Amino acid sequence: MLHVGLLGAGRIGTVHAQAITSHPGSQLTAVSDVMSEAAQKLAAEHGATARPSAEIIADPLIDAVLIATSTDTHSDLIEAAIAAGKAVLCEKPVDLSLARARACQKAVAGSGHPVMIGFNRRFDPSFGALKAALDAGDIGRAELLSITSFDPAPPPVSYVKVSGGLFRDMMIHDFDMANFIMGDAPETVMAVGSSIVDPAIGAAGDVDTAVVTLTYADGRIAVIKNSRRAVYGYDQRVELLGSEGLLQAQNVPENTLVKSTTAGVTGAKPTYFFLERYMPAYRAEWAAFVAAVTDGTPVPVTLDDGVAALAMAEAATLSRQSGAAVRLADVM
Amino acid sequence: MLHVGLLGAGRIGTVHAQAITSHPGSQLTAVSDVMSEAAQKLAAEHGATARPSAEIIADPLIDAVLIATSTDTHSDLIEAAIAAGKAVLCEKPVDLSLARARACQKAVAGSGHPVMIGFNRRFDPSFGALKAALDAGDIGRAELLSITSFDPAPPPVSYVKVSGGLFRDMMIHDFDMANFIMGDAPETVMAVGSSIVDPAIGAAGDVDTAVVTLTYADGRIAVIKNSRRAVYGYDQRVELLGSEGLLQAQNVPENTLVKSTTAGVTGAKPTYFFLERYMPAYRAEWAAFVAAVTDGTPVPVTLDDGVAALAMAEAATLSRQSGAAVRLADVM
Amino acid sequence: MLHVGLLGAGRIGTVHAQAITSHPGSQLTAVSDVMSEAAQKLAAEHGATARPSAEIIADPLIDAVLIATSTDTHSDLIEAAIAAGKAVLCEKPVDLSLARARACQKAVAGSGHPVMIGFNRRFDPSFGALKAALDAGDIGRAELLSITSFDPAPPPVSYVKVSGGLFRDMMIHDFDMANFIMGDAPETVMAVGSSIVDPAIGAAGDVDTAVVTLTYADGRIAVIKNSRRAVYGYDQRVELLGSEGLLQAQNVPENTLVKSTTAGVTGAKPTYFFLERYMPAYRAEWAAFVAAVTDGTPVPVTLDDGVAALAMAEAATLSRQSGAAVRLADVM
Amino acid sequence: MLHVGLLGAGRIGTVHAQAITSHPGSQLTAVSDVMSEAAQKLAAEHGATARPSAEIIADPLIDAVLIATSTDTHSDLIEAAIAAGKAVLCEKPVDLSLARARACQKAVAGSGHPVMIGFNRRFDPSFGALKAALDAGDIGRAELLSITSFDPAPPPVSYVKVSGGLFRDMMIHDFDMANFIMGDAPETVMAVGSSIVDPAIGAAGDVDTAVVTLTYADGRIAVIKNSRRAVYGYDQRVELLGSEGLLQAQNVPENTLVKSTTAGVTGAKPTYFFLERYMPAYRAEWAAFVAAVTDGTPVPVTLDDGVAALAMAEAATLSRQSGAAVRLADVM
Repeated sequence: MLHVGLLGAGRIGTVHAQAITSHPGSQLTAVSDVMSEAAQKLAAEHGATARPSAEIIADPLIDAVLIATSTDTHSDLIEAAIAAGKAVLCEKPVDLSLARARACQKAVAGSGHPVMIGFNRRFDPSFGALKAALDAGDIGRAELLSITSFDPAPPPVSYVKVSGGLFRDMMIHDFDMANFIMGDAPETVMAVGSSIVDPAIGAAGDVDTAVVTLTYADGRIAVIKNSRRAVYGYDQRVELLGSEGLLQAQNVPENTLVKSTTAGVTGAKPTYFFLERYMPAYRAEWAAFVAAVTDGTPVPVTLDDGVAALAMAEAATLSRQSGAAVRLADVM
Repeated sequence: MLHVGLLGAGRIGTVHAQAITSHPGSQLTAVSDVMSEAAQKLAAEHGATARPSAEIIADPLIDAVLIATSTDTHSDLIEAAIAAGKAVLCEKPVDLSLARARACQKAVAGSGHPVMIGFNRRFDPSFGALKAALDAGDIGRAELLSITSFDPAPPPVSYVKVSGGLFRDMMIHDFDMANFIMGDAPETVMAVGSSIVDPAIGAAGDVDTAVVTLTYADGRIAVIKNSRRAVYGYDQRVELLGSEGLLQAQNVPENTLVKSTTAGVTGAKPTYFFLERYMPAYRAEWAAFVAAVTDGTPVPVTLDDGVAALAMAEAATLSRQSGAAVRLADVM
Repeated sequence: MLHVGLLGAGRIGTVHAQAITSHPGSQLTAVSDVMSEAAQKLAAEHGATARPSAEIIADPLIDAVLIATSTDTHSDLIEAAIAAGKAVLCEKPVDLSLARARACQKAVAGSGHPVMIGFNRRFDPSFGALKAALDAGDIGRAELLSITSFDPAPPPVSYVKVSGGLFRDMMIHDFDMANFIMGDAPETVMAVGSSIVDPAIGAAGDVDTAVVTLTYADGRIAVIKNSRRAVYGYDQRVELLGSEGLLQAQNVPENTLVKSTTAGVTGAKPTYFFLERYMPAYRAEWAAFVAAVTDGTPVPVTLDDGVAALAMAEAATLSRQSGAAVRLADVM
Repeated sequence: MLHVGLLGAGRIGTVHAQAITSHPGSQLTAVSDVMSEAAQKLAAEHGATARPSAEIIADPLIDAVLIATSTDTHSDLIEAAIAAGKAVLCEKPVDLSLARARACQKAVAGSGHPVMIGFNRRFDPSFGALKAALDAGDIGRAELLSITSFDPAPPPVSYVKVSGGLFRDMMIHDFDMANFIMGDAPETVMAVGSSIVDPAIGAAGDVDTAVVTLTYADGRIAVIKNSRRAVYGYDQRVELLGSEGLLQAQNVPENTLVKSTTAGVTGAKPTYFFLERYMPAYRAEWAAFVAAVTDGTPVPVTLDDGVAALAMAEAATLSRQSGAAVRLADVM
């Protein structure tokens, strides 16, 4: 039985708490949050106790911590938890600062304690099936990857201002998805972006619509499309052209009802947002972490993966400013 | 908090145990089974105790019992549990004997204690969305209903022999689905059936492939197709033509991956069998039962519903033998 | 070059005229119609001449006649054309009277001149692909066939009155489709039907909604659903369960546009009616006729096929009246 | 009746000949080709005469010429035909040289004789429905356009060498599609490309896989993906995200058969190549040209459109070489 401390009792912490509790091999022992009421409420729901994060990290009875706090605390908490000998699952991104993330990477290197980054989409059944089909040779060699990733509605501008920008906050998931599928980092990153959904986002210095093209040393190409608004729901699709075929992981509809009337043939919308779409993925992610920690095998998404995605976000940010391709090696 | 005794720790009992435990308003307190080891194992997994069913029914601290035992015990257990003042959720069918089911119906009438029959498919999100769309007037008035219901593989012949036959064992779900959607019992039942999947099923006196046509007093028609074998998985679809359109509740695929190669464009198979397809429905069914018991409102699927479906199975059995339509009134 | 006389210049005659003209191996030479203006207009459009049908049949320069006149003239015209040594393609049904059709069958038997019946749906690319997949063993042995066949809107009651009834006029196509796919005539026919779309159709003695179940000597079953009204368009689907899989020939949408909004995910309706859906089938039908006549090989849809479908319509009519299964042998 | 001379009797000329002949308002009068046998054969099939192109252009009885010759002759033939007072429909691209195309544009400006460029995809029913839905406001304001355009198999390297490169030869269709849908030229063009399908294409100085991103002055973005090889068939899709929804024009399958087996649920492949997919579009294109010429209204695809697409190909070629965005204004 893995005894787990959860740092952060916000929306995503609540999701993780459910995954921890419902897994037969793990138990939620302690919860912390800067809002002590939130920590107490979530702890009570799961038979855990609310405690300060420093105390949780110091507790020798706790085996693992799940970091779901605000991004600016991730690196510090990873370092502290690893120093205390815990296994760590940390939400993405590692940090908004690539330099700080790389310092963290160095600080924990060789500790022997597992650090996994919470790129939950790798555990989505359809994306997983796509990766498995590619690895099984179903479409030959990968050539051209397309990732469509649209949120249903833009976040408040107050959030945008502290988010690190669309590339670090939102597209970072897609950078990791590209790395997951392609099995390799790209050579160059080319980005365009604009604020067409909400001018206030542009006024805050960010974009809400963006396209990034990645090129690989062997000629493969990937393209990622992001929008902060798809009114019909969370649009999360991956499509991969290979030498012997095409793989497409489609959206998951809310149900399978189809209605045919004089107005056309209408099916259900995609599931509305990440909680609906990715709940099975969050559970599978946690199960993979528990399995790796328990078996002493490497975690499936490493701190290096987290740093790699962040470097791509950095390169995309620079490329959008310059209008030219940025070599990933130049930001690493 | 509803304290629940589970009678029957087999495959379907295990499913219900999960639903009971994961519901915040109910708690699995006791489990019985004729195989005491099975009861002990399931009880242990859920922090409950294994006890004989009579003791569970007699325990005043238990509020509700879920009957998931073999069919021939359903009526007796319903009567005993109601006599003891419990709320009851009983698996389908009420009984293999229509006469016994009607006696049970009479015995518990007016008790004031809720009896719900486990027609789980009413709680499937897609079938529920179909019913809601019909009720909302999306396709006008219902005219022609089609239900496709194929199992992935036939059961062992030993099971077939004690099952009461395809109409009572398998199509009974579809009879209830017809009643749920049409909101009314049919006037006549016409059935054909054959043993084409497995001659051993025919030798055992049953059919493995059947089509039943229902006619309603107002001219509506329904047709139900059953097969014991669809090698591609559990095929569960409902289609309703109305005066202003068509509704189709389609299968749920295992994932959303689509592969295009020289061999064609291939998607995932339907989920394999009822556990995979209907797990959300079992949870929603239990939630509906808890809500009704807690609120004192009528349960959404009554003992009368169970008897009505059984009468249709009886009529279908007779019609298949005679080759003529059977009036439902003549078997009720 | 096959010189063709077209008897009948109505809606379906016009369709056939286009198929004849656009085929490189046939030429429309003469057109007849009881409305001489219609014959002249259609003849002019195709560089043919308008002439009385008797004259066309007698003309030794004409190789083949296509009979697209009213149903009550079909048998007489088939007999006359065969007597004159023509190859014949005659629209369905052979006759409304099974007795008359069988007399015609006898009259032309052994003539050596080809008679083909215009069951155009056999030439639909999707239905053809279904049949080919079955014949190729893709789903093992056929077990349960379902045919859905809904018109977009009911015909005028004046037409219904002279149509011979839904079974002879509309479902006859589906009876032939069942024979085409199953490769065999059924043993029994069971029919239900009602007038729920338009009471005036019921007042005229016909039904507008019907379900017919066919059973085969070897245990196979087929079910056919007809409605005179599907407001979303012409609904023409065939579905076949076999021992190793399922085949479904779906509708053909007007285009492939899909629109996702807050209201759902909407695609185009099916093509509106038979001209839109089956134009490719009419061309393929004509090409098959020309090929058979030119090569001296048997036509792909025989007069026997026409009589067989008519006998099933007769049996369905009787079954609906009696409420019991009718053995096809008893009407043949 | 429009009398038409067809210049070029190759594969695409043959397609146009059919469209001309089957249109009730036009007649194929003369055909030319550098291979005189090809011209004679095609002319004979359509009751036309084979003549040299200069003679066709000079013939006062000919109203319109359709130019389907090799690309390097397009500009000269357009100029000659316009000088002779003909209406012109010319295959894409106008020229491989933007400078030559612009000279041609200047030469025929103000002639008053219509010149239409053969961007046939604008006349595809599904792409047309997408444009119509956008114009009808169905998804609000356009924001992010994606065009997927894959050929089934790469052309011979001998063709690649004279093709002008993927951007001018293949993606030019997609540049025009972007202009058609967005209703405006982009501000910048960013291109990446590689030779991953066939190294011989790379050795010939071209790419076989490419992604181009277009940005618009108002913040809209478009992305175009091209590959010379999609083994499953011609992959031609357009997807447009707007402020109130998403439009997707999908592929057209060869038929609607779906097969479900233990291997999955398999539908037909997309139609194999442009002749299969776009035959209806070629007919609609010709009908639009005839209508515009007959009515004296502007043609729906102008020489300016042809030059605009060519300029985008030029900019893409430059961007791929430099790795930076190219302003379209800088190549115009």
